[in-house]
Amino acid sequence: MSEVRREPITRMWVVITTDNPKGPSDYLPFKPPYQPQTLDGPCPFCPGNEWMTPGEVFSLGQGGRWSVRVFPNKFPFFHIEGGFDRRAEGMYDVMEGVGAHEIVVESPEHHENLATLDPGQIGRMLLAFRERLLDLEKDKRFQQFLIIKNYPGVFNRHPHSHIMAMPVIPRRIDEEIWGTLDYYQRKERCIFCDILKQEISSKKRVILETLHFLVLSPFASRYPFETWIIPKLHSPDFHRITEEEMGDLSPTLHSLFIRYDRLLSDPPYSMVFHTSPVQSRFHRPEYHWHIETRLRVGLREGFEWGTGLFVNPTPPEDAARHLREVGVD
Amino acid sequence: MSEVRREPITRMWVVITTDNPKGPSDYLPFKPPYQPQTLDGPCPFCPGNEWMTPGEVFSLGQGGRWSVRVFPNKFPFFHIEGGFDRRAEGMYDVMEGVGAHEIVVESPEHHENLATLDPGQIGRMLLAFRERLLDLEKDKRFQQFLIIKNYPGVFNRHPHSHIMAMPVIPRRIDEEIWGTLDYYQRKERCIFCDILKQEISSKKRVILETLHFLVLSPFASRYPFETWIIPKLHSPDFHRITEEEMGDLSPTLHSLFIRYDRLLSDPPYSMVFHTSPVQSRFHRPEYHWHIETRLRVGLREGFEWGTGLFVNPTPPEDAARHLREVGVD
Repeated sequence: MSEVRREPITRMWVVITTDNPKGPSDYLPFKPPYQPQTLDGPCPFCPGNEWMTPGEVFSLGQGGRWSVRVFPNKFPFFHIEGGFDRRAEGMYDVMEGVGAHEIVVESPEHHENLATLDPGQIGRMLLAFRERLLDLEKDKRFQQFLIIKNYPGVFNRHPHSHIMAMPVIPRRIDEEIWGTLDYYQRKERCIFCDILKQEISSKKRVILETLHFLVLSPFASRYPFETWIIPKLHSPDFHRITEEEMGDLSPTLHSLFIRYDRLLSDPPYSMVFHTSPVQSRFHRPEYHWHIETRLRVGLREGFEWGTGLFVNPTPPEDAARHLREVGVD
Repeated sequence: MSEVRREPITRMWVVITTDNPKGPSDYLPFKPPYQPQTLDGPCPFCPGNEWMTPGEVFSLGQGGRWSVRVFPNKFPFFHIEGGFDRRAEGMYDVMEGVGAHEIVVESPEHHENLATLDPGQIGRMLLAFRERLLDLEKDKRFQQFLIIKNYPGVFNRHPHSHIMAMPVIPRRIDEEIWGTLDYYQRKERCIFCDILKQEISSKKRVILETLHFLVLSPFASRYPFETWIIPKLHSPDFHRITEEEMGDLSPTLHSLFIRYDRLLSDPPYSMVFHTSPVQSRFHRPEYHWHIETRLRVGLREGFEWGTGLFVNPTPPEDAARHLREVGVD
């Protein structure tokens, strides 16, 4: 179980695990983050070991073999049962950590990754994302969906992503929505649509342009080789993506991850889907869904943690040029 | 040299290094963050090697021996020369990275840390922090000061901190100021002063209370064993600290770092001083300066990066109890 507490000064929500909390001995010996741990025993995400996971909620496949498989996370950040129980604790605000937390296994093959999967398999992964969000949207308790992937995974390198449905809007999405609405009020235009126009015209931060998507290094990249994949057609919701866009997004993602792989020799990365909050009360038609990726290289997190100021030693114009020019064949 | 660019959607400032930018090969082979690297050759922070650093700007000591020494960082995030040159690049905002970036060597001894230094030496470190900020305040170009420390240091484990004077207010400080002002407008009270009262009365998140400071695990701790050190007397500026408060803060910090050391066996940590912006245009008397520390254990940065939502598996009440009860003698 978990609680969601509001930090009273900046009003940011924080999830606190209250079930089996970790004490000092759980942090010893120190492991640096991003170092994938070796699995003890068989991989629960491999075919044949399905009995090791909670019950499947979705899968794709044929002839009794799955190609993509979705099930609840055994160690969820949010729990599916119960109500919010929003309450005060003195001057503080707290609520129950109600939500969904699912694992999407992206391939039956343990050693694949997004650079080695074929575009068809990436398409099946995207289809699983979309179908799960369409189903989770029926639960009126959830405000926000997130799809997030770390490669290699922290506990298991078998390729997988996390889908989360959350009872609050997390800080970064909230900031983007605030910025999008503020810009819309001043200009009556979408800021993402304006960024698309300016970047397509200036070219210097463009990595790849397809029929439906622009892949670029953002002007104020926080991380070396930070990349945004933005749909050209304005839409607030990833899960309302059209079939035609889906068909374009699979090879686009594939091409980006091949570029990462060629340029930086199988680097560790994260990928997140940013999409509008759901339910009519929270939904924002002005928002523009997109995907963000970052490489986990050259991190300076002590400084970023303490200040919220990011320092990036690789200008986005350089990053875009490197990623544009690397061969993908 | 560096540029400060504003991310147009969330309006967050990001520092981009434009001098000697890093390309793909600079990130190979991958090193996990927080793994201190071995120095090639002699330590530039050790006595006898002063010639290896830029010219000293401040020191304490006697008999020709320094105990604390301050000099400009050889690899600064900000450069001291020039003007802001605020300008547009299409729809974007950009300015020069003008500022100061100094290194404070906290002890002549290479293998010390805040848990092994005596309180007198921590007092000299605090004195150096204060004197440098009082001097940097005379430069009207700077809006914000930051003092930040990572242990062990990324490039050199010799105990040292960074002092930065910046031309912009970084996101996290900005959010705290916004929250403090919003609370003040509604209640005509300081939110930090209210937190102090509630935490002293409830006791369960208090680690240590001294005459002038409260050391606590914040209600919505983002990290395991996150700790705030808050002065009981309302003041916006660390560098206006009184002699009596200084005399109390040294053993208070010492006690906290001994507790970390005892509980978690020499853990890696970060420490940051949050203080009001400077210059009359930006100064906020409603703000309440304080120190924040976090242990770099159990990090889940992929998720935090993608969402701004922190997930903490160690409730602050547990953290406070562990830190309160561990012996410090």
